[in-house]
Amino acid sequence: MTQRDGGRRLSLIALEGIPLIGPGDDLVEILLAAVGRSQLELASRDVLVMAQKIVSKAEGRYRDLASVQPSSRALELAPQVDKDPRLVELVLAESSEVVRHRAGVLIVAHRLGFVLANAGVDHSNVGGGEERVLLLPEDPDASARRLCQRIRDLTGVDVGVLIIDSLGRAWRNGTVGTALGCCGVPALLDLRGQPDLFGRPLQVTEVGFADELAAAASLLMGQANEGTPVVLVRGLDWPASASTGTLAPLLRPKQLDLFR
Amino acid sequence: MTQRDGGRRLSLIALEGIPLIGPGDDLVEILLAAVGRSQLELASRDVLVMAQKIVSKAEGRYRDLASVQPSSRALELAPQVDKDPRLVELVLAESSEVVRHRAGVLIVAHRLGFVLANAGVDHSNVGGGEERVLLLPEDPDASARRLCQRIRDLTGVDVGVLIIDSLGRAWRNGTVGTALGCCGVPALLDLRGQPDLFGRPLQVTEVGFADELAAAASLLMGQANEGTPVVLVRGLDWPASASTGTLAPLLRPKQLDLFR
Repeated sequence: MTQRDGGRRLSLIALEGIPLIGPGDDLVEILLAAVGRSQLELASRDVLVMAQKIVSKAEGRYRDLASVQPSSRALELAPQVDKDPRLVELVLAESSEVVRHRAGVLIVAHRLGFVLANAGVDHSNVGGGEERVLLLPEDPDASARRLCQRIRDLTGVDVGVLIIDSLGRAWRNGTVGTALGCCGVPALLDLRGQPDLFGRPLQVTEVGFADELAAAASLLMGQANEGTPVVLVRGLDWPASASTGTLAPLLRPKQLDLFR
Repeated sequence: MTQRDGGRRLSLIALEGIPLIGPGDDLVEILLAAVGRSQLELASRDVLVMAQKIVSKAEGRYRDLASVQPSSRALELAPQVDKDPRLVELVLAESSEVVRHRAGVLIVAHRLGFVLANAGVDHSNVGGGEERVLLLPEDPDASARRLCQRIRDLTGVDVGVLIIDSLGRAWRNGTVGTALGCCGVPALLDLRGQPDLFGRPLQVTEVGFADELAAAASLLMGQANEGTPVVLVRGLDWPASASTGTLAPLLRPKQLDLFR
């Protein structure tokens, strides 16, 4: 975006030395310490992009498969997708519908509106053995709001917070960083009414700003290492009129979606 | 990616003062001049991310709707998608199949494997009146290779080149920067065999690196202004074993795609 001065350079900085996160940890104190170690000072319009996993862990969103009783629907679906029926039960409980499935693949609409594999229920980097999995945060927008508020309380600075995960997509291989919840940073930018270079109204009028930002930060986070779950992004610009309180504008309602 | 030193900070710099591009322009001379004005010097592992539009313009990929004779198929489809039959003809000629269509929407598989609206045929920022449109480059990987080679010839430096467009996607609103062709930068990173923090094999094993990079650069390019069609990205890291010659690994073959 950002044809203004100051929007010409974007810096992404992976915060170093963030420890393994567990239930009840104060993420904000931990990341402010990391900001300090990086000899940085938070400023207005900075955005802190955080991996979903550390937010879920701090919120204690673990489940133990040993304590899950699969429903008849999970028992029926599990052999079709070649997954543990107890995991399928957790996925279905987090979802509003199954969008596609086949051997090894279970793509659902999460109750919050995301379309993704396994409802985001994850084994990797969870620890605690094969039976322990991690759900997405209960409400990632609310998580982001709490984090923004606590950063403001501790520092007096209004930063944006974006919670992201690495998700697959239609048509293309490979995961990309994708936004799950936000506060203080726009989800979608509406460019309607802006002319192109030749005065013709733009054909494309909405930009998935938070998803572009999620993908950008993901370049520094990697997959295999939880040591870099927070990336500070500096130099972003967006119109003052942009709505910044929720990810909802990014999520296409089912009735408008040609691909489910 | 990039747990190594030097991968901890990513800088994206929009190159200033790139003029409107026309057929036959030497993009590399133009962008090297812009690099010089920015008081930068290209270095190995830098990646230059370029908007598709300037590559298509330099390659003269204009079409004049006035000279297009719509086929019977285009004449039949045009009213269903509420588009000019001559535009529909151009879209079909660039495509291997229509994936979805409804009033105002025509999503196709481009002959090169991209799934996108209108086969990337674009009116915005084209100039030359309502009848003039712009196609994607004939072969974006080949365009990227030529650009890489010419940069090497003129500077002696091996940089990566990524050609991108802003595309819509399934399930979510808003366009995101998406890769169309590359040279000297990986399309897909394969993390198979890497353990997670707790020694468990990673569940997600492939990262859409070029698409994450495209999205990142798109944050600085914007939509309305062609004045920032090139973004220099510095600080990327990837395994030496990664394949960097073509975008093809990012494109999911139809028979493996659950969403067309």
